[in-house]
Amino acid sequence: MTSRIEIDGKRLLQRLDDFARIGATPAGGVNRQALSAEDRASRRLLAERALARGFRVFQDPMANLFIRREGRFPEKPPFVIGSHLDSQPTGGRFDGALGTLSAFEVMESLEDAGIETDLPIEVVAWTNEEGSRFQPGTMGSMAFAAATIPDAWSDLRGRDGARFVEELKATLHALPEAEMRPLGVPISGYIELHIEQGPSLERENIPIGIVHGIQGTRWLEVTITGQAAHAGTTALEFRRDPMAAAVAALEPLYKGTMLNDPRARFTVGRFAVEPGSVNAIPGSVTFTVDLRHPEATVIDALENQIRRACDKAAAAAGCRSELRQIFDMPPAAFSEDLLAGLDRAAASLGLKTKRMLSGAFHDALFVSRVAPAAMIFVPCRDGLSHNEAEYVEPEHSVTGARMLLAATMEAIVLSA
Amino acid sequence: MTSRIEIDGKRLLQRLDDFARIGATPAGGVNRQALSAEDRASRRLLAERALARGFRVFQDPMANLFIRREGRFPEKPPFVIGSHLDSQPTGGRFDGALGTLSAFEVMESLEDAGIETDLPIEVVAWTNEEGSRFQPGTMGSMAFAAATIPDAWSDLRGRDGARFVEELKATLHALPEAEMRPLGVPISGYIELHIEQGPSLERENIPIGIVHGIQGTRWLEVTITGQAAHAGTTALEFRRDPMAAAVAALEPLYKGTMLNDPRARFTVGRFAVEPGSVNAIPGSVTFTVDLRHPEATVIDALENQIRRACDKAAAAAGCRSELRQIFDMPPAAFSEDLLAGLDRAAASLGLKTKRMLSGAFHDALFVSRVAPAAMIFVPCRDGLSHNEAEYVEPEHSVTGARMLLAATMEAIVLSA
Repeated sequence: MTSRIEIDGKRLLQRLDDFARIGATPAGGVNRQALSAEDRASRRLLAERALARGFRVFQDPMANLFIRREGRFPEKPPFVIGSHLDSQPTGGRFDGALGTLSAFEVMESLEDAGIETDLPIEVVAWTNEEGSRFQPGTMGSMAFAAATIPDAWSDLRGRDGARFVEELKATLHALPEAEMRPLGVPISGYIELHIEQGPSLERENIPIGIVHGIQGTRWLEVTITGQAAHAGTTALEFRRDPMAAAVAALEPLYKGTMLNDPRARFTVGRFAVEPGSVNAIPGSVTFTVDLRHPEATVIDALENQIRRACDKAAAAAGCRSELRQIFDMPPAAFSEDLLAGLDRAAASLGLKTKRMLSGAFHDALFVSRVAPAAMIFVPCRDGLSHNEAEYVEPEHSVTGARMLLAATMEAIVLSA
Repeated sequence: MTSRIEIDGKRLLQRLDDFARIGATPAGGVNRQALSAEDRASRRLLAERALARGFRVFQDPMANLFIRREGRFPEKPPFVIGSHLDSQPTGGRFDGALGTLSAFEVMESLEDAGIETDLPIEVVAWTNEEGSRFQPGTMGSMAFAAATIPDAWSDLRGRDGARFVEELKATLHALPEAEMRPLGVPISGYIELHIEQGPSLERENIPIGIVHGIQGTRWLEVTITGQAAHAGTTALEFRRDPMAAAVAALEPLYKGTMLNDPRARFTVGRFAVEPGSVNAIPGSVTFTVDLRHPEATVIDALENQIRRACDKAAAAAGCRSELRQIFDMPPAAFSEDLLAGLDRAAASLGLKTKRMLSGAFHDALFVSRVAPAAMIFVPCRDGLSHNEAEYVEPEHSVTGARMLLAATMEAIVLSA
């Protein structure tokens, strides 16, 4: 069946360029943060292309965007493919966009070939996968899987001070052509194509990664409170310097964590100092820790280790440390049936593949809680991501889309 | 002579309360940053009180504010007393304000007593002593001593994005009653009263500190540049994490610097991370170091030590480190003649005193380059400053003003 269809690589690459212009940064990346004007512009562009092809467009209360191509059995839950369109503040052109636009290319290819599928197929662009403007990340798929929007989000503000509910409403209103539908409609399955965001496929020269699961991610926020005082007059014995405490706590954690366990990831991505004057000892510092590991128990152990290190260093500096979880995503394992289908699809295309675990979390993680899900990875240069220099070889993008098409046909036969 | 005059303690304390209302923070401090609306309001209040007493009001192109009480010999350079009115973002009610308002109280007391002095006396409020909104600090006295405004300041922007030249112009226009005068007019001498901003006077229960000099201050800005990458997918061997490098560089500096030399001061007051996403390894971090020591050679040695530590840690993390001076104030020694006058003044009032070095820099440091200068310290609670909890006992404020009056009378006899 797949042999009769081919995706249009030229069209896909052109579309990647078109979307990269929305929120383009001078350094060649994109700044298209969730629910921003740029995010809305990219949603509009996708919706317009969809309507031009005669597909229906839906959005749910979380502004998750769905493009639907009808199937022979419209009453059956659709098979969903896609990713996200939002980016980091200094993000790359492919993170999210490649998966969403490859999915749309698959849908257009089916339309071009006049293929009628048993199941309806839908392309999705999930809202706020990145979590850089509004925390947490993967809000759209999280709410979709829960079929509800957490109350806590109603008071949420972005790092730019914007109110989440207002930006969400404005984003929904910006796409009046879309039909509203409830959160969490039943789906038959989900496949997400994404760049690896790591170097292993490129290094091993493997075009396709078949992702069998996602490592767990936990975000911690640590606040160490001391006492602001004058930098020039306050002798060491009178200092209660939270900056000194933070450095003392983090130094052994940087040294230890990832060296002791190569599967662990330890990152401090945000660090704020109050009051933030050159000549004032800070009164408090707040920083985030991004912890990842394939095993939930290890993540718990690492959190305890971090808490102890911060408490100890804070106490030694006459400060007080508080640690709280701001995001927690347990490890996930994908559908064996879907993974088998991915293996067959790759075989039918003669593509070399590798089974792998995802280091990044993805919308597929939440979707996998309500339907069979799996992911396809393609290589990205030097494994760079969340970076304006992020780059994917055109042939890898096209191969990824061909794999997504074949995998989708395998899957819908399976799910029909 | 001094015996015939007394300052009005009640009036001084009332005035401190009146000024503390301008930019008052909920926590009982003040936010009256240089050239802000609050700063202008405090300048206006002082100018109105001065004009009401028949004193003349001047300002120079740096918006340094002068209140003049004429002397028997108007052609002689005035003897100047005062401090500043601007504050840290979360500053206290006494830092600067006590010295400025005590000086004004001295002038009013002379007026009340109908004392005619040989030399004109002027109260000064220097512009932007704190350097928290616009860097560097002590801009007003610096430009006064140089009799010119550095070209570099014309492009200066505040941390709030405001343009220095525009805020300066608006501040000048906000006080049309003030007569303009050039920068750096000759002065006979200068005495500045200030809170100690350290704990020693309070601990030793000494009401007056006679300040014989100021330790040197140097501000460094360090930028460590690595490579932003995905927090979840990038293994240790592929990381070039500037945050890890900064922590590795700072840890030994915090441990060593002040322990090895009790006279040294080492403070990191600002720390910024780019791009600042929870789940992105930073691409760069920038932090400031505030270095102080009574000996210029030691400050040079400490700077070299910091540069080496940052270069080493950056290299080990595959990053690049850049260090630059953003402010440098060499140590200063005050006028022995003025200091002798301060001793006599304290003796005449029967006040216990202590000769001491200032840990903080002050406008007196720059003024001391163009005229005999000295400072008087009064105790502040727990040595707290640059903090909303900053507090001075009413009796200490009043004693300070009495000392300033006596010292001024001693000095003008000396200088006449």
